[in-house]
Amino acid sequence: MNRKKSAEEEIRFLLDQVKQGRIDAAHAVKALDISRLDEILHRLIKAPSVEGLPKWTGGISGAPGAAVGRAYFSADALLLARKRGEACILVLPSAFAGDVKAIEAAAGVLTAQGGYAAHASVVARQYGTVSLVAPELTITGTKAVLGSLVFCEGESITLDAPYDGEPSVYRGAAELTEPDIAESSLFEFIALAKGIIKQFQVRANAETPTDAERALSFGADGIGLCRTEHMFFQPGRINTFREMILSEGAEARQQALEKLRIMQRDDFYRIFKIMAGKAVTIRLLDAPLHEFMPNTGDELTSYMDHLSASAGAPISPATVLARIEALKECNPMLGHRGCRIAVSYPEIYAMQVSAIFEAAHALVHPEIMVPLIMNAAEMKLIAYGKRVTGAEYAGIADMAGPLPYKIGAMIELPAAALGAGEIARYAQFFSFGTNDLTQTTLGLSRDDAAGFLPAYTRYDLLPDNPFRVLDRGVKELIALAVDRGRLARPDLVCGLCGEQGADPAAIRFCMEVGIDYVSCSPYAVPKAILAAAQAELDRADHGS
Amino acid sequence: MNRKKSAEEEIRFLLDQVKQGRIDAAHAVKALDISRLDEILHRLIKAPSVEGLPKWTGGISGAPGAAVGRAYFSADALLLARKRGEACILVLPSAFAGDVKAIEAAAGVLTAQGGYAAHASVVARQYGTVSLVAPELTITGTKAVLGSLVFCEGESITLDAPYDGEPSVYRGAAELTEPDIAESSLFEFIALAKGIIKQFQVRANAETPTDAERALSFGADGIGLCRTEHMFFQPGRINTFREMILSEGAEARQQALEKLRIMQRDDFYRIFKIMAGKAVTIRLLDAPLHEFMPNTGDELTSYMDHLSASAGAPISPATVLARIEALKECNPMLGHRGCRIAVSYPEIYAMQVSAIFEAAHALVHPEIMVPLIMNAAEMKLIAYGKRVTGAEYAGIADMAGPLPYKIGAMIELPAAALGAGEIARYAQFFSFGTNDLTQTTLGLSRDDAAGFLPAYTRYDLLPDNPFRVLDRGVKELIALAVDRGRLARPDLVCGLCGEQGADPAAIRFCMEVGIDYVSCSPYAVPKAILAAAQAELDRADHGS
Repeated sequence: MNRKKSAEEEIRFLLDQVKQGRIDAAHAVKALDISRLDEILHRLIKAPSVEGLPKWTGGISGAPGAAVGRAYFSADALLLARKRGEACILVLPSAFAGDVKAIEAAAGVLTAQGGYAAHASVVARQYGTVSLVAPELTITGTKAVLGSLVFCEGESITLDAPYDGEPSVYRGAAELTEPDIAESSLFEFIALAKGIIKQFQVRANAETPTDAERALSFGADGIGLCRTEHMFFQPGRINTFREMILSEGAEARQQALEKLRIMQRDDFYRIFKIMAGKAVTIRLLDAPLHEFMPNTGDELTSYMDHLSASAGAPISPATVLARIEALKECNPMLGHRGCRIAVSYPEIYAMQVSAIFEAAHALVHPEIMVPLIMNAAEMKLIAYGKRVTGAEYAGIADMAGPLPYKIGAMIELPAAALGAGEIARYAQFFSFGTNDLTQTTLGLSRDDAAGFLPAYTRYDLLPDNPFRVLDRGVKELIALAVDRGRLARPDLVCGLCGEQGADPAAIRFCMEVGIDYVSCSPYAVPKAILAAAQAELDRADHGS
Repeated sequence: MNRKKSAEEEIRFLLDQVKQGRIDAAHAVKALDISRLDEILHRLIKAPSVEGLPKWTGGISGAPGAAVGRAYFSADALLLARKRGEACILVLPSAFAGDVKAIEAAAGVLTAQGGYAAHASVVARQYGTVSLVAPELTITGTKAVLGSLVFCEGESITLDAPYDGEPSVYRGAAELTEPDIAESSLFEFIALAKGIIKQFQVRANAETPTDAERALSFGADGIGLCRTEHMFFQPGRINTFREMILSEGAEARQQALEKLRIMQRDDFYRIFKIMAGKAVTIRLLDAPLHEFMPNTGDELTSYMDHLSASAGAPISPATVLARIEALKECNPMLGHRGCRIAVSYPEIYAMQVSAIFEAAHALVHPEIMVPLIMNAAEMKLIAYGKRVTGAEYAGIADMAGPLPYKIGAMIELPAAALGAGEIARYAQFFSFGTNDLTQTTLGLSRDDAAGFLPAYTRYDLLPDNPFRVLDRGVKELIALAVDRGRLARPDLVCGLCGEQGADPAAIRFCMEVGIDYVSCSPYAVPKAILAAAQAELDRADHGS
């Protein structure tokens, strides 16, 4: 028998050896190659089935795995096809926050703009959807072109996005392996690995009950990043959020906020019930407001129809268009977002915080984190409020009830890393948002970099994709921030919640500099646990 | 006589005292308040003349001084009015690179978007044009609205943009003081101050012969920042640059580049002749390519007319529109710009470098600086070239003739500051681009910040406008980069060429950390020299 064991067979073999006392848990955990978990967690192509299919090779894997489905060129067309039961691939120039539902429903996503850390990829990894970014992709009408590969809307295509190695797109349907996670010994093996880890935690990024359940089943120690913006994108909610943005007076805004508060409270409650007793870290609103406004002509038309129906009379789009225009920014990544929105509109965070405390009661001790902190003054204001002439800014602590909770700062700007000592005076924990910290440290937009990074690879100018493997400068800033933060507050808890959190080298780095946990997408949790256990064993071997 | 002396009278008085031997130069230099130079360098409002004029107060001073003129809502309308000899104020939602000519021709610029370090303000300071940024400004048709202040295109308005204090806009024409620089004793006083400075240099940002002459007359030690992109915006040139961007084959691109090379060589020659024997630091192309494409419908129409005329047949705009679309980015500030353009298109920097060396001959020893350096690998490639499979990348050093020259790196990303030790191995000088370093360190877009910074002022969250006064974190990164750079290359020359370079506190900081020069707009040079001399005297007093 010369055939290589499948990953499942390998894991069962190792577990049997442990049970029979032939090897100990440490040996078993060290023996398994982390990348082999992909075979269990993701679908893969059966090689003979793609022979002869027209093929394009290139681009970047946004979320690993292989996917087969009919190509659809809009979220709406895809969701309609899903209702008919088709397997679908979403093909778009670039994906917006409003495409989340379609990304969840799709087997795969193919976009021209983006990269490993861009929106489509992050959301895809979250839901186990395959994602491939191909900057060459052009879509005209119902035809998509990728080099010499041409396919039409509705045609079957195959995406192959390996974690390592070059991705491919095929015209036609390949045969895929069917991973059967439920029947897998993976869970038992992960439990074995978890037993080896001493202090370090692996948490998951999760923002729906499904995510939370999946995270727990994969062995996550809690939720390290619960983004709150996606909760507003569901149909029926997005318009309430828009109502809040467009409201002219304080009263109209308060009415819209009250509706949103009820929705958020119920969302949080469902997640908290699943996570009862475990850590749940909630990030307050981070996205710029313009992301919530209609992005395309179709979205605008449908929104105007909604407004006219609510008003009982046709409404002209002029005001809405003017507001959309006013919200546009030259560089939204460096613009009015994160806690800057709360500085301008305190009532938005107040609504979210009130929903969190109401939902938490005896279930969890919420950890509330504030995104895009730049300096200690912001952190102090948002956490503890301030009285200024003629007004009072209510801080998170002012709204808290008797329940224990924590307030933390996301460290995702170089200024925040450098000023960590002062920020820690007002933050009980830090969460390093390494996506944004990488963008600002390197001056590199994750949504635009895919276009010019290939030339960088050609001349060998970057050792790795910095959105997947932590950059040197980013690591220096993180290490410095942990040190400065702990000097000010020795019991400061530190986590890392960027996309690099799933990378074994990043986990090793986190353990070295004293970070307490990483948070990554649910599907990456098993690999992260295995990586943490292996790093722990290495440290023990080297006597550190 | 209780009347306060005018700045001119004060300067003459101090110079007389020195000549009569009553005080020494040090006393005279210490006695003059730097901000009083504004009275000589800029027009100011005669207070009684604005009594009763409708007034709006707020916004940010982009370039100091006061201006009166008729309001025009487009660069074209303004340039036409200037031809009729009118004094004009440019009023726009936001200014683009193509508006440079109009900003130069205008007495003042009023924009809604932007800030102290935004495009319109930087260009305005360069040309001595007054600039005021008022986020509240809305323009509809031929009417502009600022709170309760309403004015129409063609109507006279007055801008008051003090360096310190709150700006105002008036409907109607105020009377202004007329600074008479030519007759002023300022130049004599500046020479006195320069005599006190030991090592430190004040250079100017200059990119035209007029700028260069003005810089010299104001006492500048050389040019610290010669931007090369504005040279391409002149009529007749922009279309050649677009031809280069749009060219399909290598040959067509080479033809367009050759035309651009001749233009740049002649521009450089004119500047070098004025600066003969002095330092001239040239920044290679930094702007993203999309800035050179038509921005408005009118620009596109006129460009399509030009293309059709060149081709002798009407040309459809589809290809041009597709290319404009392809060049658009989500966050251009963090996108395909700076040396990243040279990594993708080596021929652009090759053209510029060849033009510089050809123009320099015996006149100057050019200092060529590479913008947006992220790491040492980029710097090595661009400075010294590389052979990769199937191609050769020609470095600046490969193209140099026998003339002495220097190659330097702009340190404007946190990653570059942290990696300064390695970068210095391939760079003979550093120039700290503090506009971009501030944007990336704080994650703050200078074009978008004006919209939310007022709320920051309300809660006292930022000690100063970080685009005018160096931020703490930015200073820490600069100091660290100087140290790491000098450790690798002890004779590394360091300069600072951001907008903060004119701030007395920044000059003091530069002298403390061992930076050799600042570079600022020509009109700010006298204040910078005075600040450097005062800092020098303070250091002497404190025995450091």
